[in-house]
Amino acid sequence: MTRRTRRVLSIQSHVAFGYVGGKAAVFPLQCLGYDVDVVNSVNFSNHSGYGRFGGSRASATELSSIFQIMEQNGLLIPERLLTGYIPGAEALSAVKELAEKLRQKNPELLYLLDPVLGDAGKLYVAPDVIPIYRSALPYSTIITPNWFEVEVLTDVQISDPASLRRAIRILHDEYRVPNVIISSIPLKAWLKEILPTHVQPSVAAADDQFLACISSSSSEDETGRKTRSVHASCLPCLPGYFSGVGDLFSALVLAHFHPSADSCADDTETPLSRAVSHALTKTHAILTLTHEYSEGLPEDERLATDEELDAREPERKVRRMKGRELRLIQSQDIIRGVTPVEYRRMELWTDFWVVED
Amino acid sequence: MTRRTRRVLSIQSHVAFGYVGGKAAVFPLQCLGYDVDVVNSVNFSNHSGYGRFGGSRASATELSSIFQIMEQNGLLIPERLLTGYIPGAEALSAVKELAEKLRQKNPELLYLLDPVLGDAGKLYVAPDVIPIYRSALPYSTIITPNWFEVEVLTDVQISDPASLRRAIRILHDEYRVPNVIISSIPLKAWLKEILPTHVQPSVAAADDQFLACISSSSSEDETGRKTRSVHASCLPCLPGYFSGVGDLFSALVLAHFHPSADSCADDTETPLSRAVSHALTKTHAILTLTHEYSEGLPEDERLATDEELDAREPERKVRRMKGRELRLIQSQDIIRGVTPVEYRRMELWTDFWVVED
Repeated sequence: MTRRTRRVLSIQSHVAFGYVGGKAAVFPLQCLGYDVDVVNSVNFSNHSGYGRFGGSRASATELSSIFQIMEQNGLLIPERLLTGYIPGAEALSAVKELAEKLRQKNPELLYLLDPVLGDAGKLYVAPDVIPIYRSALPYSTIITPNWFEVEVLTDVQISDPASLRRAIRILHDEYRVPNVIISSIPLKAWLKEILPTHVQPSVAAADDQFLACISSSSSEDETGRKTRSVHASCLPCLPGYFSGVGDLFSALVLAHFHPSADSCADDTETPLSRAVSHALTKTHAILTLTHEYSEGLPEDERLATDEELDAREPERKVRRMKGRELRLIQSQDIIRGVTPVEYRRMELWTDFWVVED
Repeated sequence: MTRRTRRVLSIQSHVAFGYVGGKAAVFPLQCLGYDVDVVNSVNFSNHSGYGRFGGSRASATELSSIFQIMEQNGLLIPERLLTGYIPGAEALSAVKELAEKLRQKNPELLYLLDPVLGDAGKLYVAPDVIPIYRSALPYSTIITPNWFEVEVLTDVQISDPASLRRAIRILHDEYRVPNVIISSIPLKAWLKEILPTHVQPSVAAADDQFLACISSSSSEDETGRKTRSVHASCLPCLPGYFSGVGDLFSALVLAHFHPSADSCADDTETPLSRAVSHALTKTHAILTLTHEYSEGLPEDERLATDEELDAREPERKVRRMKGRELRLIQSQDIIRGVTPVEYRRMELWTDFWVVED
C-alpha cells in the first residue's frame, strides 16, 4: 500500500442519470487510482440535451462556503484540479479565485481547465463568462477547448494554417497556457494538406468523416529560450452525437499527464502528447463501444439525429439521448488499460512552427 | 458486452472530501458493474464528524422535481434502490413516496433501506423521521439497521435472547421486511452464550472487542407456510471510529444480493447470508487497510479518540477524521474480488427460532 496519495479536486456539473460532467469524469479518475474530491456545480436529473431537465444550481455563495470550510479543515490539498461546466459568471468567478489560491499555495498544481463555452459555432453559455474564462487561463496547466472555444477565447477565426498558428500562439504567449489541446477540429482540406503525411487518414474522406486532435506545449528555460512542440492525430467520426465525451476526455488527459519527461517513450513524445494519446485511445474505444451498444437497441430507441422530427416529437430526442449515454461502467477495463484497444498515438508535427507568419 | 443493464438508484448524502454516504456507496457499486443513478440528498464539504462542515441540503421539493423529471423522461428505471441518510421528515417522505411508486411499478424491485437514525444509544436525527422510516419499511427488500436503530424502530430494548427474537419478529411480521441485517451489535455475554459455538470468537474477549452481525430472512409460500433462517458472524472491532462504514457495507450487500437461490453454495446459505458474507468480507478488509494506513501517519494525524481533548482543541478531531477516511480507492481490487482476503462467512444459526417466547 503506497503512502503517496494522488488527489484531484473536480468541480463540474452532476446529473442523477447518465454520464456527463462529473459523472463522466470522476469514475475514470477513481479507477485510475485518484482520490477525487467532488464539488457539484449543479445537481440535475439528466443532461440538458434531453430537452427536459431539472434540479438546482449551486450559487457562488454555496460554492465559496464549501471551499472555505474545506480550507479551514485542511482538506483543500489536491495536487490536481479539474474544472468543467460552471453555470454563470458569479460561480465561475468563485472557481477562478479558488484556482488562483491553489496555484499560489502550490506552484506544482496541475490544473486542467476545460473552457465549456459551446460547440460547432454555437455559444451555449452567457457571453459574460468569456472574460472570466480568459482571466482564469493563466492559472491553468492544460486547457482542452474544441476549435470553436479556441475561436471564442482568442477572437481568431480558424480558417487556414496561419490563423491556427496565431490562435495557439495567443493561448501560449498572451494567456500563458503551457499546454493547449484542441480536442476536436473538423479535418477540412486546408488542415489535411498541412498535417504530416503519416497523420493523415489513409482513406480519402470527406471533411466531416474525420476529426483532428492537436496538442501544443510551450515551455521556457531560465535563459528565456522557448521550447515548443506540436502533436496531432486524426480519428474517424462516429455518427450521431454523444454527450459527456469531452468531460471524459479531459479527465483521462489529466489522469495520464505526468510532467516529468521520464515517462516518455522517446524524444518524439512529450508528457502532454503521451497523456493525450492515452486519453484519445480510451475515449475512442469507449465511444465505439457505446455506439455499438446503441446500434443494437430496439428501433424506437436508436432514432437518428433529426432536429425537425425532434421538434415535432420531443420524446424522440429523449429516447435517443437515453440510448446514447456513455457505456462507462461497462468500459472500466478499457479505462484501467486491462482490455487492449487500438492505440491512438499523437504524432510529432515537426514543421508546425517552421513557417513564421 | 452484455445488453443486460444492472441499474441502481442511490439516494443519500454527498460530501466533497472523504467517503461517507454516496461517496462510500457509489464507487463500489460501479466497480461491481452497476450503472448508478445518483441523487444527492445533501451537498456538504465533508462529513459532520469533523465538527465543522457546510454546504446545502436538497429540499423535498428539489428531490421530488428531480424524481418527476426522471420519470417524465423514462429514466426512473432502476432494478435496485438504495437509500441512506436523508435530512428531515419532508425529504424522507418524498423518498418514501418514490420507493412506493417504484415498488408498484416493479414488484421485483430490490430496495435496500438503511434507516439512518443513530448509533450506540444516541439518536442523531430529528425524532419526527422515525414514524416515516417505519411507514417506509414495508416497501423494503433488505434493511441494515445497527442494534440501536432496531431498538428505535421496534420499541424493543435488546437485552436478552427473547428481546432480540422479538425485535426481529416485529420487523418481519409487523413491518413485513423480508430481509433484516443487524449490521453490528456488541458481543455481550448473553449474546455470546446463545451464538452457535462455531460462530463464537475462539479467543476469550471482552464485550467491546467483538461485534456480531446477524441476518434474518423470512418468506412465505402460497400456502402461507413461513420459511425463516438466521445467520451470524463475529468480527474483531478495530480501535477508533471510522465514518462511512455502514454506507459501504449496505452498498456491498445490495451489490452482492441475488434473490435466486441458485447463487447459493449449499443449503446452509441463503441469498441474504451469501450477500452479507461478501459485504462483511470486503468491508472488514477495507477497514483493516484503512486502519493500517492511519496507524502509519505522522503522530499529529493519528490522535486517539478522546472527547475531552477534542473539546479543548477542535483541530485535533479534524486531523483525526482526515486520517481515518476510508481507503476506498486504494481498495478497489478488494471490492472487485481481485485481491484475495479472509472470507467472513455468515454461519447458519439453526436453533435461533426454536425457542418459542
